[in-house]
Amino acid sequence: MAEQQEPAGSLKDIIAHAKEYGFVFPSSEIYDGLQAVYDYGQYGVELKNNLKSVWWKAMTMLHDNVVGIDASIFMHPLTWKASGHVDSFNDPMIDNKDSKKRYRADQLLEAKAEEYANNGHPERGETLLNRMGRLLDANDLEGVRELIISEGIVCPVSGTDNWTEVRQFNLMFSTQVGAVSDDASLIYLRPETAQGIFVNFLNVQKTGRMKVPFGIAQIGKAFRNEIVARQFTFRMREFEQMEMQFFCRPGTEMEWYDKWKETRMKFHQALGIPASKLRFKPHDKLAHYANAAVDIEFKFPFGFREMEGIHSRTDFDLKSHQELSKKKQQYFDNDLNEDGKPYGNYIPYVVETSVGADRLFLAVLCNAYTEETSEDGKTRTYLKLHPAVAPIKAAVLPLVKKDGLPEKAREIQNQLKYDFNVFYEERDSIGKRYTRQDLIGTPFCIAVDYQTLEDNTVTIRHRDSTEQERIAIADLKAKIGHAVSLERVLENL
Amino acid sequence: MAEQQEPAGSLKDIIAHAKEYGFVFPSSEIYDGLQAVYDYGQYGVELKNNLKSVWWKAMTMLHDNVVGIDASIFMHPLTWKASGHVDSFNDPMIDNKDSKKRYRADQLLEAKAEEYANNGHPERGETLLNRMGRLLDANDLEGVRELIISEGIVCPVSGTDNWTEVRQFNLMFSTQVGAVSDDASLIYLRPETAQGIFVNFLNVQKTGRMKVPFGIAQIGKAFRNEIVARQFTFRMREFEQMEMQFFCRPGTEMEWYDKWKETRMKFHQALGIPASKLRFKPHDKLAHYANAAVDIEFKFPFGFREMEGIHSRTDFDLKSHQELSKKKQQYFDNDLNEDGKPYGNYIPYVVETSVGADRLFLAVLCNAYTEETSEDGKTRTYLKLHPAVAPIKAAVLPLVKKDGLPEKAREIQNQLKYDFNVFYEERDSIGKRYTRQDLIGTPFCIAVDYQTLEDNTVTIRHRDSTEQERIAIADLKAKIGHAVSLERVLENL
Repeated sequence: MAEQQEPAGSLKDIIAHAKEYGFVFPSSEIYDGLQAVYDYGQYGVELKNNLKSVWWKAMTMLHDNVVGIDASIFMHPLTWKASGHVDSFNDPMIDNKDSKKRYRADQLLEAKAEEYANNGHPERGETLLNRMGRLLDANDLEGVRELIISEGIVCPVSGTDNWTEVRQFNLMFSTQVGAVSDDASLIYLRPETAQGIFVNFLNVQKTGRMKVPFGIAQIGKAFRNEIVARQFTFRMREFEQMEMQFFCRPGTEMEWYDKWKETRMKFHQALGIPASKLRFKPHDKLAHYANAAVDIEFKFPFGFREMEGIHSRTDFDLKSHQELSKKKQQYFDNDLNEDGKPYGNYIPYVVETSVGADRLFLAVLCNAYTEETSEDGKTRTYLKLHPAVAPIKAAVLPLVKKDGLPEKAREIQNQLKYDFNVFYEERDSIGKRYTRQDLIGTPFCIAVDYQTLEDNTVTIRHRDSTEQERIAIADLKAKIGHAVSLERVLENL
Repeated sequence: MAEQQEPAGSLKDIIAHAKEYGFVFPSSEIYDGLQAVYDYGQYGVELKNNLKSVWWKAMTMLHDNVVGIDASIFMHPLTWKASGHVDSFNDPMIDNKDSKKRYRADQLLEAKAEEYANNGHPERGETLLNRMGRLLDANDLEGVRELIISEGIVCPVSGTDNWTEVRQFNLMFSTQVGAVSDDASLIYLRPETAQGIFVNFLNVQKTGRMKVPFGIAQIGKAFRNEIVARQFTFRMREFEQMEMQFFCRPGTEMEWYDKWKETRMKFHQALGIPASKLRFKPHDKLAHYANAAVDIEFKFPFGFREMEGIHSRTDFDLKSHQELSKKKQQYFDNDLNEDGKPYGNYIPYVVETSVGADRLFLAVLCNAYTEETSEDGKTRTYLKLHPAVAPIKAAVLPLVKKDGLPEKAREIQNQLKYDFNVFYEERDSIGKRYTRQDLIGTPFCIAVDYQTLEDNTVTIRHRDSTEQERIAIADLKAKIGHAVSLERVLENL
């Protein structure tokens, strides 16, 4: 039996594997790529779609007070005024006049603090970060510049401290819509999907006759002009969010916050991510809209990092939209309070769960990546994906390419293909074909051999154990169907 | 029994119904909307997701030589140079100097031609369109302007013919990516998803060990700065495409073109659209990249219009990318030709199927919208959606809100909710609740009554016939599950 080792799985391994086996390609690679943008390949798209589908079902099908929407990426520009993105979705940037290179001022200071820590002066690093925090909070950009100079920070390219002033750089992408020159207008690519839910709050509540508390879930693309995008698909300029805004009565938000915290943590575990690779990380500092916030972090190869955020956003967003649009964003609650009177009109409070689809994908891929060395010293690499999210559910493999085995295998493929993703392959040795399926995480390989022609049985090989068993063709659909059904994840929620 | 009438279903009816019952909302409506952009509401998103899912499965699961990808919206700008979009994805625009209003020059002339036709001179309209076509082909924009003036076309706002010159206006949205001022670069929002497939052709072929002929399918957003966007979700500035590029050996493309033409027509019929509302419309004039092209048109309330295009694109795209990227876009075909030698290296030819997800959604919605007047003169409106794509599969409705019926109904809901979308409602009379489910196209209503408590049976009401039958709770999952399974559509393909 194979002996389990600590998974190898450095980020470099994962990137190479994702590229080599059709999960993730650099975008526009034939033109040397586009920084911080990636494409999902033939197996990546299936894995990602499965993750999106299980999230969607977990949120909407399992909760009858949560419904979905799909708002557009383009929104009225006032949306981003109300949300605060126009005024404060910024990074502080500084240019070196000699090299003409631009940097994030906060990252220059953070690097310096890390240098202190590495050189045995963590307290100096700490002090520096605190000073920076106070200056940024006060939007004292000149103070930030002075701090950079007084710390002796130089441009790594020119080696000089010939710095420009610090300026705020907005992370939203903008474009011009319309053709009539005098009414062409600037719009933004949404930097988050949440606002598409807020502006539709009353549309959904009224047309869906929803009673507070209820939630609206959404999956969609968002865009941020990240200055320093790195760590593969972890921080991209174009990314996909899976967000749910849960509208509740003011004063009850902490109950819902706690409930959704637990529900969402359970979700990741139901996908097969062990508790040891997950943790809650409360926010040190709350955003302007929040009265409570926690991240669910996954242990990526580069350390524990945010995969999902759960935020109690108060009534900040709906209230801002009400003010700017002059349209009431209120709900009339006719449930009775302690005094026996209806709660009446209020702007609901909101608890948000927001997970990056690309981060979940990366987490699941990192978690699945396994290198095992057996007793005879051979190493096997495979993706230990939950069968319900694996790109291919079963591979049908005729032992040899003759004597009617391919035809029989095709017959089996045709029986199964209406129910799940089935792969057929007849080239190369059966061992090589098993290996290829291991590398893309296919949970079941079905070998069709001479005995199959006699008694209509096949061999099923299990990916994780590599064990094989003989079963009747007639039982394949039920056996595999059960193991790969999304219900297998949902029933654990 | 109800007497079937010609469906009402004007575009106005459809828009109102879509808004009122949570299918489609104007985007950012609280800010008075954003022209030609729409959001999908709680039922719309389910219907649209079901349509996307059935397309995806029909293309990839049922064809073992078709795989999917999900390329990003952002692509390297040279992609659009190679595809021809930078140079020729234009509309000819003209401004009236008095009103400052801008128009599409071709549409002004088309309106004039229609006026001739309506006034009994169709041949004059015909002649005008032919002249315009020749001028546009020759890019003779001054000629187009002269034609507008000589035809006496005036601005409907100012009433004058004080026109500017005609200029080409590119329909791509652009934005700036990156922060370092000297390398910030202009990129485009993709105007079609097809190029994401072409630039990944070799990545998929190699990592997936695909043999020509094979196809790559993709669902994703695309963006066009349409000058005149109208007809609801038919022509939007942000829209979603479902495209498949099928790579084949040069010389075999017409076989595949014919095959995919038939396959795609069958798909729409499998969704329940009758043949009488569908037709093939060959292109009068081929695009620069095509050697054959046909549309599948659906009979929308505003007439037969394109829903899907099937195009034989030759090797135009791959060849352009090869030239511009200096990266060979060739396939080595080791199948043997008539002389017993391998076909060897070539750039594959491509047959494309491209359907608008939003147009398919609109077609399915229009087709489903039914107003029926029964013998007693009562009118019933319902959505006759294929059960497999209906947003909600079953509504569980306790007859009354007491005596344990709600609890029993919740029990049934909890049994079914892992398998499909189930709705629970206890407010209002059962008749009103049936009506609400009819309006969103729910195929089955499950009424829970006093008898249910005795013998564990319920009444199922069928949406289309309004007939009711008594069945055991234990049989619900299988009965409904079978009717609503996507397999019900796929097995007809």
